[in-house]
Amino acid sequence: MIVPVTRPLARYVVSTRLEDLPAAVRHEGTRAFVNWLGCVLGGSGEEVVGRALSVYGNFAGPAQSTVIGHRLKVDAPTAALLNTMSNFAHGYNDTHLATVAHPMGAPGSALFAQAERQRVSGPEFMRAMILGVEVACRIANMVFAPPARAHVGLSAHGVTDGIAAAVATGCLLGLNEDQMVWALGLACVQASGLRSTFGTMGTKLIAGHAARCGMLAAFLAARGYTCSETPIEDAKGYAAVFANPPNLPAATDRLGEQFEILKVAYKPFPCGVVIHPAIDACLTLAGQPGFSADVIERVELRVHPMTLQLCNRPEPRDSIQALTSAQHWIAAALLHRAAGLKQGTGECVRHPAMTAMRARVTLIADEALEGSAAVAVVSLQDGRQLDAAVRQSQGSLERPMSDAELGDKFRNQATLVLPSDQAEALLEESWRLPELTDVGAMAARYFLPGK
Amino acid sequence: MIVPVTRPLARYVVSTRLEDLPAAVRHEGTRAFVNWLGCVLGGSGEEVVGRALSVYGNFAGPAQSTVIGHRLKVDAPTAALLNTMSNFAHGYNDTHLATVAHPMGAPGSALFAQAERQRVSGPEFMRAMILGVEVACRIANMVFAPPARAHVGLSAHGVTDGIAAAVATGCLLGLNEDQMVWALGLACVQASGLRSTFGTMGTKLIAGHAARCGMLAAFLAARGYTCSETPIEDAKGYAAVFANPPNLPAATDRLGEQFEILKVAYKPFPCGVVIHPAIDACLTLAGQPGFSADVIERVELRVHPMTLQLCNRPEPRDSIQALTSAQHWIAAALLHRAAGLKQGTGECVRHPAMTAMRARVTLIADEALEGSAAVAVVSLQDGRQLDAAVRQSQGSLERPMSDAELGDKFRNQATLVLPSDQAEALLEESWRLPELTDVGAMAARYFLPGK
Repeated sequence: MIVPVTRPLARYVVSTRLEDLPAAVRHEGTRAFVNWLGCVLGGSGEEVVGRALSVYGNFAGPAQSTVIGHRLKVDAPTAALLNTMSNFAHGYNDTHLATVAHPMGAPGSALFAQAERQRVSGPEFMRAMILGVEVACRIANMVFAPPARAHVGLSAHGVTDGIAAAVATGCLLGLNEDQMVWALGLACVQASGLRSTFGTMGTKLIAGHAARCGMLAAFLAARGYTCSETPIEDAKGYAAVFANPPNLPAATDRLGEQFEILKVAYKPFPCGVVIHPAIDACLTLAGQPGFSADVIERVELRVHPMTLQLCNRPEPRDSIQALTSAQHWIAAALLHRAAGLKQGTGECVRHPAMTAMRARVTLIADEALEGSAAVAVVSLQDGRQLDAAVRQSQGSLERPMSDAELGDKFRNQATLVLPSDQAEALLEESWRLPELTDVGAMAARYFLPGK
Repeated sequence: MIVPVTRPLARYVVSTRLEDLPAAVRHEGTRAFVNWLGCVLGGSGEEVVGRALSVYGNFAGPAQSTVIGHRLKVDAPTAALLNTMSNFAHGYNDTHLATVAHPMGAPGSALFAQAERQRVSGPEFMRAMILGVEVACRIANMVFAPPARAHVGLSAHGVTDGIAAAVATGCLLGLNEDQMVWALGLACVQASGLRSTFGTMGTKLIAGHAARCGMLAAFLAARGYTCSETPIEDAKGYAAVFANPPNLPAATDRLGEQFEILKVAYKPFPCGVVIHPAIDACLTLAGQPGFSADVIERVELRVHPMTLQLCNRPEPRDSIQALTSAQHWIAAALLHRAAGLKQGTGECVRHPAMTAMRARVTLIADEALEGSAAVAVVSLQDGRQLDAAVRQSQGSLERPMSDAELGDKFRNQATLVLPSDQAEALLEESWRLPELTDVGAMAARYFLPGK
């Protein structure tokens, strides 16, 4: 007896109106947009994006959608790919904490790209974003959240982002239920991503690629390109292939009552979310009166085992490797009393003082700790010890970033590529997403030549 | 201790010249080209290709490479995608028998697309094709051939075709060893495909998508887009994620001494290769003097278990479902005494006499049978039984299709879209691949407007 997954999800998506969603969920749609756009702007200048553009640009189609931060237009799926890469470039984006997936970059970029091709209102954008995130996170739960178990090498966001993009794009295209079933299947068929690439440019391709694939899944389905009825749940399907065991009921449990977007956190620090509690603990220590990094002899961090599994990288060599180096960010928090964009640069990564500090760090996996917790113990040269324990780190579901904090994060990112008055105007407009009549019109006003 | 895989494969590829390969292997490169091109021509008119073109065409880039059978040019990776879909459309292509992968469609299409952008000689094409197939089949062995074991739902060609396309394209681009390592990793990151889509248009997307992804992996690597050193073999890599257990040594065992292209068979029948022994047994029966399908009461086929695992589909509804319906082809062989393109059409699939005959077929999995064997027992209305046993079916490695048979297959396919004199000239030119100085020049002569 197979638990139905694909069709119930498709039916839910096509039958759900924005007004069916609670106000808190709708507001999260706006916050998602603000965070998505800030991260795209902030990451757009990274080398990895430029290098991808230099390749994809050779094969790109008609000038349909904007490559944000690059002042040019390419075909919509390629724009979605590149903007998603920008969104991920600093590792500053968003996290579905139960699965460590990052569900907003791909649908946000797919929606914005399509919003330059058809008039999409703010509410339409929000609905599509919320539903794309909802479906993708439920599928992530089905594969990655206990009691489901997936191989640690399988990229959680890689194999779920495309589904989010497909659903979101499908909402804008007005897919019917059958078409949405096919779109889900066609996204599953293209789902990919391995963690063995983490710490290289390869990892940044994963999400961008997924965004493009997901968009195309929706367009194919809209043209009647069929897929199977049960691509997710059947014996040769997505769930069985990617998880052992999968948790099929998680995909539809309390669908329409519980909302996954409320379980997606925005990152206060530009690195892997499993590093955040350790950063928070170290910032707490570094903020104590009289603290001096100069006299640190040894740093011990007790962390959730997932931190070591994903981010145990004692000697990062560049900014990309630093994104998944717990040691780097612990050192930065202690040495610089900060964990922002500046601490993620190659310059900071390679500084001798950082190398020395990272060498003093020991990570200890502690099964008893929650994912949002960490304990830091710093031993000083004079024999004293300082310690700090964090139960709910900044940016966790219990201590989410406020709208004001999201705004500050946006400003820090946007001003890397926009004059500050434009960044401010764009932020203000982004918060007014629920009232906008044409989201794509932002592109011409802020992101194209002449602006 | 990790068994090295990625770098040894990359090193082998970049250091191997065509003249290092045995004559039989080189000739197989020509046969692969003939079979690849015939299958592309033959499948190009299928609805699934046209529907994909109607979507990908909206986003396609500069007119770089020909969509064979459609008399137009699009960007190279999109052309590779569509031509690969044509190559797969009739399920008539090629099979790596140890893994049921189909390793030639993607690299063939990637190479031809690129050969329209840079001058590629026949020998260069052959070298790239042979090495792409070599690496992809070795990786297929690593994941799918016992003692390795992968989930039955994972598409063997889906997760290996892109690797073949990446290596093949990388050969034309002259990637150095490091770049080839990255190209392999970037192909692995995009590797995807689920068998839950079999029997729908979704399944045809898998190979085409892989071709495009593989090509882009090579182009990215050529531009210095990095990936990791051990994307295949490390603990979070391709092998560990896709197989449990993988067989890492199979990837490099006797590399340069044994050649996988010699283990790739060309299909004599346009359907899943695991159905072929059953077809052969039924054609043997149907060819006996006095045989009449009208008096058949019951048909029992003893087959390798894989036949049931992949192609147990008693009631196919259309030509795509028929591709993976053993019952359909058994019925066709008995009723029509043939198993060619005509028996794969929707018209044949839906004919009431075929429906009735399929209903008489029982498949029995027999662990004792080799993959190339089958036993057919037909019970007649008068109580008599006829039987036929096939040990090595047509198209198996022991009974490979001859060059002449490949030529006949090519003619049947090519004449679906070309006048017979052109088909004949193209076939003759294709056999002269080792002497050609510019493979891509074929496109203008045979496949573009005016021709």
